[in-house]
Amino acid sequence: MKIIVDAFGGDNAPNEIILGCVQSKAELGTEIILSGNREKILAAAKEINCFDEVSAWQILDCDDEITMDDEATSVVKEKKNSSMAVGLQALADGVGDAFASAGNSGALVVGATMIVKRIRKVKRVSFAPIIPKYNGFLMFSDAGANIECRPEMLLQFGIMGSVYMEKVMGIKNPRVGLANVGTEEHKGDELRHEAYKLLKKCTDINFVGNVEAREIPYDAADVVVSDGFTGNIIIKLFEGVAMVVMDKFKEVLTKNFKNKLAAAVVYSDMKELKKTMDYNAYGGAPIMGAAKPVFKIHGSAKANTVQSALKLTRDYAESGIIEEIAKAVSGKDRQIGSAE
Amino acid sequence: MKIIVDAFGGDNAPNEIILGCVQSKAELGTEIILSGNREKILAAAKEINCFDEVSAWQILDCDDEITMDDEATSVVKEKKNSSMAVGLQALADGVGDAFASAGNSGALVVGATMIVKRIRKVKRVSFAPIIPKYNGFLMFSDAGANIECRPEMLLQFGIMGSVYMEKVMGIKNPRVGLANVGTEEHKGDELRHEAYKLLKKCTDINFVGNVEAREIPYDAADVVVSDGFTGNIIIKLFEGVAMVVMDKFKEVLTKNFKNKLAAAVVYSDMKELKKTMDYNAYGGAPIMGAAKPVFKIHGSAKANTVQSALKLTRDYAESGIIEEIAKAVSGKDRQIGSAE
Repeated sequence: MKIIVDAFGGDNAPNEIILGCVQSKAELGTEIILSGNREKILAAAKEINCFDEVSAWQILDCDDEITMDDEATSVVKEKKNSSMAVGLQALADGVGDAFASAGNSGALVVGATMIVKRIRKVKRVSFAPIIPKYNGFLMFSDAGANIECRPEMLLQFGIMGSVYMEKVMGIKNPRVGLANVGTEEHKGDELRHEAYKLLKKCTDINFVGNVEAREIPYDAADVVVSDGFTGNIIIKLFEGVAMVVMDKFKEVLTKNFKNKLAAAVVYSDMKELKKTMDYNAYGGAPIMGAAKPVFKIHGSAKANTVQSALKLTRDYAESGIIEEIAKAVSGKDRQIGSAE
Repeated sequence: MKIIVDAFGGDNAPNEIILGCVQSKAELGTEIILSGNREKILAAAKEINCFDEVSAWQILDCDDEITMDDEATSVVKEKKNSSMAVGLQALADGVGDAFASAGNSGALVVGATMIVKRIRKVKRVSFAPIIPKYNGFLMFSDAGANIECRPEMLLQFGIMGSVYMEKVMGIKNPRVGLANVGTEEHKGDELRHEAYKLLKKCTDINFVGNVEAREIPYDAADVVVSDGFTGNIIIKLFEGVAMVVMDKFKEVLTKNFKNKLAAAVVYSDMKELKKTMDYNAYGGAPIMGAAKPVFKIHGSAKANTVQSALKLTRDYAESGIIEEIAKAVSGKDRQIGSAE
């Protein structure tokens, strides 16, 4: 198992990315291939005291980097020689088994689609983060790759998510829900009405109907399906509200001496809690529907989050679900009589 | 000042509604007119030991009630004799100065539009709850009245919200933001692009541009504008995530004897915090754009929340903003050269 990692994506690149790779290699035993400027990578490796190890790795040497300000399409245009584009091309060429990057999400979605290509019959790739809920985690698909969606795309997000949650995350018969403004079948707009019908008709997934946003962080479904506009707002608000409440609690617990004493008593439990509700806990999001495993690491990831993400990337690549998704999607296509 | 209150709306009607009215009358000195079945109202008043007071109030006697399962349009069709329809009609007829109900939101929006009518030139009424943020509160508009919106509607939501926040809630020069998937002008779908242009052109509001969902619970804007589909999801997720995190904290604080002791120390501060982050704290949502003040009380409201809501209803009615909105909206119409 060889994972290609973009050394120059994310807020803490390259040092934390490389450190996360070193930790992952030790934990998972997977081989790491880095994409990016060799000189800078080795200088960073020196800084974090991993020169001997990292200098022995395969490096896909290239000069350019995609920044957060670059257009998404730059990955296939003016920045073809960036660490992201070169890594994705290497994946497409079979140099490694999976690719992970903490860089520009939009560029990664475009790169996955144009360089790695989609699975046959998949209409659009989806940005599908794994996020915490009350008693575990859920997959949200799509969380921003596709601002405007057609109903068949939402059906495919459900099918792909279902396969991923079952085979990579170990959830038996995952419940697929449609994010909507009410649970009744007639709720929402035209897109929701049509997507509901398609998801309901699809006998190979466990569709539990519409889910209200209030229930998503509890336990409404294991895979929540949405268009990318709504989905992006949902995951960001999720993060924002959780952060605000945590911040408010912190204020209370540090308000005065007596509260600080009480805080000391519950400190380790609170820390654990903060970890379980951390939006970043699972490391990121698979780009579902790409023909080979592409994984988005959270942009703010430090070494430990990179490590979590690379574990999921490894699991994704090992699971063999890409073929399964190809089968499921083409089966569904026949079943629902799609015109495409 | 006479406020007409629907005695049969909400989860805790009629007892908590009536009790809330009694409390409000004592606090605010406003006159209360109840709509609903006289016999049931007086029986409830007896139960809560307020018979003498309530029996002296004006009651708009009617037999029917709108339930949560009723179609929104029932308020102008088969349930014209319901406590909500009768109360709205009385407001339209000038029997009272404002109307408040904790009942079916959809029916209230339809009733406000069809019975009370819209302010001239207002394209659609908006369901615009006041919700907590890190350092105060914000108005979210629209949070579900209009599943599908046109750009000019979003502009009007911004204008109306700005007037309300300034004149009723006392926020000077309120910042108006557009809920979107990124802060840059080109972000989002066609609706966002067009709404952005209209809001930016409108010189009488303090438009601060696109706001990301992550920043909404912090302090991105005082009025957040959105279509009703996205908005409904945002306010419900807001409530859900805050509840989950609170529940998780409660688990930690009651986990064992030592934590319970610590919890006792911070108990009153925690209670205060819970109150400040309570989605229900501000009592509900004005139906912005109706030609007279209509206020939606939270469906789950108990007496104290009813009281908070009636205070806002009173402020809304006293503010005289309906005329101001009429002026602002028609002024804006000319300014932006709308075709309608």
